[in-house]
Amino acid sequence: MDEKHLIEETVSTETVFEGRVFDLQVKSVRLPDGSASKRDIIQHPGAVAVVPLFNNERVILVRQFRSALETIMWEIPAGTLEPGEEPLAAAERELREEIGYHPNNLIPLGGIHVAPGYSSEYIHIYLSTELSAVASGGDVDEFIEKHDMPLSEAFTLLRTGQITDAKTIAGLLLTQQYLDNQT
Amino acid sequence: MDEKHLIEETVSTETVFEGRVFDLQVKSVRLPDGSASKRDIIQHPGAVAVVPLFNNERVILVRQFRSALETIMWEIPAGTLEPGEEPLAAAERELREEIGYHPNNLIPLGGIHVAPGYSSEYIHIYLSTELSAVASGGDVDEFIEKHDMPLSEAFTLLRTGQITDAKTIAGLLLTQQYLDNQT
Repeated sequence: MDEKHLIEETVSTETVFEGRVFDLQVKSVRLPDGSASKRDIIQHPGAVAVVPLFNNERVILVRQFRSALETIMWEIPAGTLEPGEEPLAAAERELREEIGYHPNNLIPLGGIHVAPGYSSEYIHIYLSTELSAVASGGDVDEFIEKHDMPLSEAFTLLRTGQITDAKTIAGLLLTQQYLDNQT
Repeated sequence: MDEKHLIEETVSTETVFEGRVFDLQVKSVRLPDGSASKRDIIQHPGAVAVVPLFNNERVILVRQFRSALETIMWEIPAGTLEPGEEPLAAAERELREEIGYHPNNLIPLGGIHVAPGYSSEYIHIYLSTELSAVASGGDVDEFIEKHDMPLSEAFTLLRTGQITDAKTIAGLLLTQQYLDNQT
């Protein structure tokens, strides 16, 4: 496809905020028609999320308070990449920290750009079907509760609107697709 | 569930950036164990996204350059809520602006919190199965190309990693679930 007519050019970039997890940049851009505009962009290091599946029928979800939404959310185990950290290593670390399991396999299910309009964040999503219990390392700034449930119950939570986290919805639906293709 | 032990309290909130689409706040919070921490939060007005489905077998996706990712993305039609705008009205507006169709029905498929760790954004996701062609209103700051394709081709793009946008993945997979439950 010739798509040059869609591309905007970055003229300059100013970092206006350096945060704990992400930075905020204001980019001056030239639109395809030559006019000028601005884009407010979150520069994010990326993240991983894992669906921990036991015997192809049970899953562990976590409950965690999210300040941005002022509520407790249902989520699959997940976390931000540390500097220089590979996604597979991050997936192992997050599973250990959040639910106390080591994944003996990590099946890539793809991933999501969470908000292409303003965030660079990409979340690598994995399925683990072979897990071993390990000592759970405490993540010092996180207060998380894990819930073991049938996969069918997780889908009920999704269908009834109780699961709204994007990575969790994508992870569960992609897991369902993966399992359907196995049979 | 008694989940008081998960809740953090907001002590103070400072708006450090007011942007075109979202604001950035730094919140001082008290963690469940009483210790102090900070949260960098994007305050976002929310958004809508629509899967436009024709004859239960063709879909229109759009190609759009995304400055945050410096690339052109495959997405379903979508956009940010304007001040005071209802999600259904926004869905109608975005479909008209981006692909030149009016939805005669809008079936709610749920929605996604795109990044609960740092963004308040919630995207309402709809399916429209009854659409009428209308004059497409130009969205002044958007350069978008629409692509009509079989739904199966959209799923091929998803499976091969060419679709990575969270709302598009959720929208397509929830549409598949909806169609499966119809038959």
